[in-house]
Formats: sequence, C-alpha cells, structure tokens
Amino acid sequence: MALIHGYATHAAGAELLPYKYEAGELKPTDIEVKVTHCGVCHSDLHLIDNDWGISQYPFIPGHEIVGTVSKVGTEAYEFEVGDRVGIGWQANSCGHCEWCRKGLENLCAKSQGTCVHRHGGFADSVSVNSRFVFPIPAALESEHVAPLLCAGITVYNPLREYQVNPTSRVGIIGIGGLGHIALQFARAFGAYVTGFSTSANKEQEALSLGAHQFVNTRDSKGLKSLVGHFDLILSTINADQDWTAYLHALRPTGTLVFVGAPPSPLTLPVAPLTSCQRKIAGSSGGSPWQIREMLDVAARHGIKAQTERFTFDKVNLALSKLRKNQIRYRAVLAS
Amino acid sequence: MALIHGYATHAAGAELLPYKYEAGELKPTDIEVKVTHCGVCHSDLHLIDNDWGISQYPFIPGHEIVGTVSKVGTEAYEFEVGDRVGIGWQANSCGHCEWCRKGLENLCAKSQGTCVHRHGGFADSVSVNSRFVFPIPAALESEHVAPLLCAGITVYNPLREYQVNPTSRVGIIGIGGLGHIALQFARAFGAYVTGFSTSANKEQEALSLGAHQFVNTRDSKGLKSLVGHFDLILSTINADQDWTAYLHALRPTGTLVFVGAPPSPLTLPVAPLTSCQRKIAGSSGGSPWQIREMLDVAARHGIKAQTERFTFDKVNLALSKLRKNQIRYRAVLAS
Repeated sequence: MALIHGYATHAAGAELLPYKYEAGELKPTDIEVKVTHCGVCHSDLHLIDNDWGISQYPFIPGHEIVGTVSKVGTEAYEFEVGDRVGIGWQANSCGHCEWCRKGLENLCAKSQGTCVHRHGGFADSVSVNSRFVFPIPAALESEHVAPLLCAGITVYNPLREYQVNPTSRVGIIGIGGLGHIALQFARAFGAYVTGFSTSANKEQEALSLGAHQFVNTRDSKGLKSLVGHFDLILSTINADQDWTAYLHALRPTGTLVFVGAPPSPLTLPVAPLTSCQRKIAGSSGGSPWQIREMLDVAARHGIKAQTERFTFDKVNLALSKLRKNQIRYRAVLAS
Repeated sequence: MALIHGYATHAAGAELLPYKYEAGELKPTDIEVKVTHCGVCHSDLHLIDNDWGISQYPFIPGHEIVGTVSKVGTEAYEFEVGDRVGIGWQANSCGHCEWCRKGLENLCAKSQGTCVHRHGGFADSVSVNSRFVFPIPAALESEHVAPLLCAGITVYNPLREYQVNPTSRVGIIGIGGLGHIALQFARAFGAYVTGFSTSANKEQEALSLGAHQFVNTRDSKGLKSLVGHFDLILSTINADQDWTAYLHALRPTGTLVFVGAPPSPLTLPVAPLTSCQRKIAGSSGGSPWQIREMLDVAARHGIKAQTERFTFDKVNLALSKLRKNQIRYRAVLAS
C-alpha cells in the first residue's frame, strides 16, 4: 500500500512531528488529492489543543487544501486526474438526511471534518468524498485561494444568508484571518463597509481591503456614533466585546452574526432585540454549492487571502506565529 | 369643548383615579373613537409603574381598544361614524421615514404609543391617527378581539416573519396572556405546536388551545428530550429560564424569538449559534397592515382571547388581579 507522509500532533498542544500512514483502498465515492498547498487555520490550533474535546491523537491537521487530483474513485464523477481542486473543513456527510438532501450538507448531524477523526492536509496526500471536492477557478492562485476554503466560506455565507446588497451597511469586527477576507467580500456585494479593530494601525489596510470607513474600537465614541447604522455586523474575533453596544449599532431588523467564538458567554439585554426586531445569529462554514459559488465570486472579484508562505516542514513555525497573532493574515503551507 | 372621562394614574404604582380632560380639536388626520372595550395589558402595568422611565403623570393607560367611530377628521378616510374599529399600541408615527414608507410604521423611531405621553383607552373616548385605526371583522366579538390588538399582533408577527407553515415545529413558552393566543395562531399556521409551562395543570388547556403536546418545564427531562426539534420557539414570559437548553432544542437554522422580557440579561454561549446557524431574535407589536392581516386570520380561524370582563370603574381590581397573575388570560374593561 502507498504511504502518506505528513505532520501529526500526538498530544494536546504538542508540536507536530513527521508521521506516515497507509493510504488504504480509495473508496468508490472518494477522490485522492496530491496536496500542493494547505492553509493553517485557527481551528487547527483548537483541534491540536483539544479545545473542543473531540481530538483523537495522533492526527494530521489541515483543512484548507489545494492540490491536484491523483486518483478518482469508481463512483466519483466530475474530476479527472491532474485537475486542480480544493477541499475545505468538511470531508463527508451522511448523504441521506434532510440537510444533505437540501444541499446544506454542512448542517448534517453526521458531518465529518477533513481533519477530525481522520488525517488532514498537512500531508502530501488526502482523500475525501468527491461531493466535498471543488474545482478551483483558473483566475485564483493556489496559495491565495487555499484559505478561502474555510475562512472564505465562513465569512461569505452570512453575507448571502442575510442578503447583503448595495443598499446594505455592513460592519466587520476584527481585521484578521477572517476579517480581511470579509471586507473584500462585503465590498464585492456592493455594501457600504465599516471595519472595526482594536489596532488603530490597521486603518489603511482595512480601507485598501474594501472598507469605506474604519472604527478604532478602543475609541468608545466611534461605535457610539453609529447607533442604528448597520444592517449586518459580522464578528470575526475570538475576544469578548461590549456586544450590547454592537446591538444598538444595528438598524431595525438588523443582525449581529458571530463567526468567531468569544471566550465568555454573550450577556445581552432583550430590549434592543424586541424594540427593533434585531437578531443575533451564528454561522460556520458552508455547503458544497455555497463554496463553489464563493469561489466563483472570488475569481470574478479578485478576492484573495493575504498569505505568509511556509514550506510543509516549517509547519510548527507557522503554528507558533499564528498562536502569537503574528500572521498577516493567513499562513499557507506550500510544497 | 367636550370632556373625556377616564381613569388615570397620577404617580408610579398608584391606583387609578377618575380623571377628565378636554378633547381638544380633532386633528384632520385623526379619528375619534367612543371606547366600548379596552384590554388590560402587562405593558399598562409597566407604564403605570414607570418601569421604562417614559411615563408622564397623570395619564390614562389602555391600548387594546375597541369602540365605534364618533368623529372623523377632515383628511381621514375609510371610516364613517358608527363603524366598529380597533386601536392598538401605536397611535401615530412620523409618516416620512424609511420604515413608515415601507409600511413598517412600528419600527419608526418617532412612533407614538396610544397611552404614552397622551391619554389612552381606559376612558370613554380616544383619538388617534386614522392610519392606526382598524376595521374589526364582523365575526369577532369586541370583548375577545380587544386583546388581539396588542397581545395578538405581538405573537402573530414573528410567526409570519419566520415563515411558520405546516412543515414547522413551533414551541410556545408560557401559557398566559400572550401564550394562549400564540398557541391558537401557531395552530392556524398549520404547525406542530408544543406548549411549555411551569404549571403542570395547564396541560389540558394548552391542548385545547391548539398545542399538540405539552411540556412541563419543571421536569428537566421534558425539554432535554427535544434537542434539535424546533424551527421556532417563541418566549412569551417575563421570567428567566435556561435559555441555552432552549437554544439546543432548535433545529439547524431555527430561531428563538423573545416577545416577553426576562428580568435578567440573556447569558448564552456562542457555540450553539455558530454550529447550526441558529438565531435569537426579538419582536414587539406589528405594523398597521400586519394588524389588519392578523385580524383577518383571527376571524377566519376563530381565534380569540380568553377574557375576564370588568366594568371600567373596576379597573383597579383588574390591574390588581393582573399583578397577582390571577387573570385567565386577558382582562378586558367593557362599558
């Protein structure tokens, strides 16, 4: 049998070590992909650290994969050996439940992650169900598209779900791995875009990424001057904030969507929700058709992740810089 | 000038006293209504007690009004003297803002309440802008329709907003003034309806009002057995609950809507929102066209408030019983 070589974590929080495993028989519905690029995502750190209590060691992280098809299962269609393709967070789903039948496989209760209870993309090869393999539009470079397969769809999906359009005013909280992509997509949807950050020095970058205005959230007047302003506010950060102030910044019927996970529970009064029919929502990832659509929009609008490139053997350096918030804005492993 | 006689509150929490004021000139856009019935709502208590800090004493409460048109302004159309009509929470709005132009006057920032900074329906007469006067369908009795003008639209609106239909599973938290109407409307929308109450003895009544099943929320297993069950849960209560458990009871993409106001801020983890695209929302009242639609649905589906009737001079008894949670389910003053 063929051996797959990658970098695995063997214990919570440990450095990754070279690791190999047998590829096994390719399932009829699966596609094998030779990995050329793999983004390094915050959720890889969560899995490495077992923050969600679901990690089984050893395992190879990585779920923002770009590569070339190297083998096609007997019942997998659409792709041919040599095609450039992408793979994101999800590797499979039950295929039979209401959500799978509706084309919303990301909501399937039996969803399987690309690097959860199996080996992911910090490796020379990976196999997943062909339903979760996506053609990469020619206009997109592999290094810059890899992070779109998780970070990109995560921020794209709520913009679509809440019907952002040229009449919309959209706020993006956090100019980081997710936020710098969210600014670009929000601009592509035609919205008036506001970037929020605790780092005053990110203003120019936020504007160049698509923001029309920038608010330094350490200046408490900035947010308060925007009461009743936004149709949609997307929080991409993993930190606690004054969420009540953001609620008040929503217009009537507006929505505050969390795609980041603050460490503390939200503490929110009900009055700003009831008085103006505001909403709070969460979102993570997207389904295969949504990912295909997102890639198409990215290609047509020139949307790409700003990346820092590492060779695969420098994966621990990439993870370490990510932990220290030193990546601008997504690390990508490339062979 | 004509004098209007009613019952006013003169200080926070005080008993209402007979009170009269001059009707003044009828504005061209207004309709004067001779009040025959007026529901007694929890928000009247909040205004009497100045819980929201907006009460100006003395004032006459009351905003679930049914009566007959007694005078029509020179620029008010549609109604004729003698017509039976209803008036709800809202008496006027700016008429010019985006929300007024969209027919969502309840979201107007300059919305005026029928008994806020003016005199309401615990009186023999009241005047409001004709846009906020509604014909009452012949099938509905005045006593039973009065509470629909506030309580009814409050629970009806989120059922429409979140597109409840015969495929939906809907939970109603609280079988009280709002909840007993919500059960009827949810059933009329064709949904599978679950009633939640801390009072085990309300089971039969909940079923007779439209619930398919009843969950005693003092039995912790009841709610936990319904993980992932509901498309929409409507909380009609003014008490704190384990909201996280209700979030988990929502299906993917489901919504928990607050129309009641719990005393404490909501404390909620983000994970159940992000992992299944769940939502939290609030709602209060509805716009004129939504109220007209709600009245039409009530008439066609035989939906009515269960009422306890008091003469107007017994208003303090009605308020006192409401404070003690002794009304099943809405008090209505009737002449």
